[in-house]
Amino acid sequence: MPCFFPLEIISRKKMRTSGFVAIFFMIFLSVSSAYPGWKKQYKPCKQLVLYFHDIIYNGQNAANATAAIVAAPEGANLTILAGQFHFGNIAVFDDPITLDNNLQSPPVGRAQGMYIYDTKNTFTAWLGFTFVLNSTKHQGTINFIGADPIMVKSRDISVVGGTGDFFMHRGIATIMTDSFEGDVYFRLRVDVKFYECW
Amino acid sequence: MPCFFPLEIISRKKMRTSGFVAIFFMIFLSVSSAYPGWKKQYKPCKQLVLYFHDIIYNGQNAANATAAIVAAPEGANLTILAGQFHFGNIAVFDDPITLDNNLQSPPVGRAQGMYIYDTKNTFTAWLGFTFVLNSTKHQGTINFIGADPIMVKSRDISVVGGTGDFFMHRGIATIMTDSFEGDVYFRLRVDVKFYECW
Amino acid sequence: MPCFFPLEIISRKKMRTSGFVAIFFMIFLSVSSAYPGWKKQYKPCKQLVLYFHDIIYNGQNAANATAAIVAAPEGANLTILAGQFHFGNIAVFDDPITLDNNLQSPPVGRAQGMYIYDTKNTFTAWLGFTFVLNSTKHQGTINFIGADPIMVKSRDISVVGGTGDFFMHRGIATIMTDSFEGDVYFRLRVDVKFYECW
Repeated sequence: MPCFFPLEIISRKKMRTSGFVAIFFMIFLSVSSAYPGWKKQYKPCKQLVLYFHDIIYNGQNAANATAAIVAAPEGANLTILAGQFHFGNIAVFDDPITLDNNLQSPPVGRAQGMYIYDTKNTFTAWLGFTFVLNSTKHQGTINFIGADPIMVKSRDISVVGGTGDFFMHRGIATIMTDSFEGDVYFRLRVDVKFYECW
Repeated sequence: MPCFFPLEIISRKKMRTSGFVAIFFMIFLSVSSAYPGWKKQYKPCKQLVLYFHDIIYNGQNAANATAAIVAAPEGANLTILAGQFHFGNIAVFDDPITLDNNLQSPPVGRAQGMYIYDTKNTFTAWLGFTFVLNSTKHQGTINFIGADPIMVKSRDISVVGGTGDFFMHRGIATIMTDSFEGDVYFRLRVDVKFYECW
Repeated sequence: MPCFFPLEIISRKKMRTSGFVAIFFMIFLSVSSAYPGWKKQYKPCKQLVLYFHDIIYNGQNAANATAAIVAAPEGANLTILAGQFHFGNIAVFDDPITLDNNLQSPPVGRAQGMYIYDTKNTFTAWLGFTFVLNSTKHQGTINFIGADPIMVKSRDISVVGGTGDFFMHRGIATIMTDSFEGDVYFRLRVDVKFYECW
């Protein structure tokens, strides 16, 4: 985090309206240390909730599939996720993003990148992907990386950068598995919370 | 982004010269809200234009190749980029970086990492790579990730960090395909614009 | 970097204690330009030294292995690292993290992600991974990417984000190969230095 911690909290809305704020924030600074719990008060400067839908190629759904297994450990193949919690599978995806949890809703962009199953004794993935948003409301990209302990209900990854409407943004994305159907379909709910907005 | 948006714009050059600036910036803060278009005024605190050259291994060019396909979807192989817009191919690369668009120019570093073809109906890649610069002018690394819609003339990815001369830097890289020859060679022009420079 | 360079240095400890600091920092700002060498004075706002242990699957150590080769260039296989400096191998890992250099020490978390051998004429890897820390002392994740010139004693990669105790943190990680045994085991010492702490 930049320099002024507490400033973040008050600055986004008030700072630009009055020179008075600059003085106010100095006073605020000197007071804020009295509240050790302030660290948890961060509020996103921008927030988006989006869903994306992943249909994994299984040898029979070429037309619908939005993801494919492209790497696997020794002895595994590319149309069935590997045993041992899929350890060693890399899947590449280009998934539709929607505003709600309905796969048929008009997409507002694409989630593009990869996930890597990286654990032998539970389902855990490592994610590297981008939201490419292209709608009347948002134009730009958001870049994510992080560990995804799939069996945990709600987990956090990093928003490491953005372009267009999300120029230089950083934040946290909280992801939840909203639905899954065997090894063929899953849907993630992504709550993107930006804390650096530019 | 840190805390003071407009400050970024004036701070880099003037801030260190006079205490007066600190007061000036407060006034500036109070005024800047009158210009809703200010968001587009960001100027890079540092900028580099570099080229890198990718020669993909095709089974016959082992001596010259700087990249290799290492993963492919079911039914594809590792010496020909896959059908369906190369969907599912992962290539690993160690490409020379030059200051101009000539492959024979003395390299100033290496671009190292991977690209993933991740779309079935157009050419799109996901990039994760590093510029390792090692010249009299620059020593250090720059780390990039982002989506690359290859058919678009100019596209932006994120500069998520750096080391050495680029310690803690962040920014945006605008990439353009400067040349390509079939499935064997391409050259990217990368305009690296840092907005956080330390 | 945020906005006030020198401020970073004095702010962490003093800023919250007194409004006087705000004025002090203005004076400091106006003076600091006299010391061109200040750039090297950055001190981490938080620092962690951790070790992680990677045991690569070689066809015979399934029970102990924490990493597996999942992609390889044409002609190579998945139980032996490829010739030509392993160029083109992608390994997926879920490695225990310990506080010291002993593989038997109680793990404080897992290092999860991938490494990619990306050079034909020396050992160089590209890293994308996450520290998932889960101990009485630390709860949260730290996300890393960067180039790893393995033969160099000490090398820097980027800390691009974090969650939990490391919410929004950024920094640099200095990694050293602390030990390696043929192509089966290596241990990395990771000195994580955060310069943005929130």
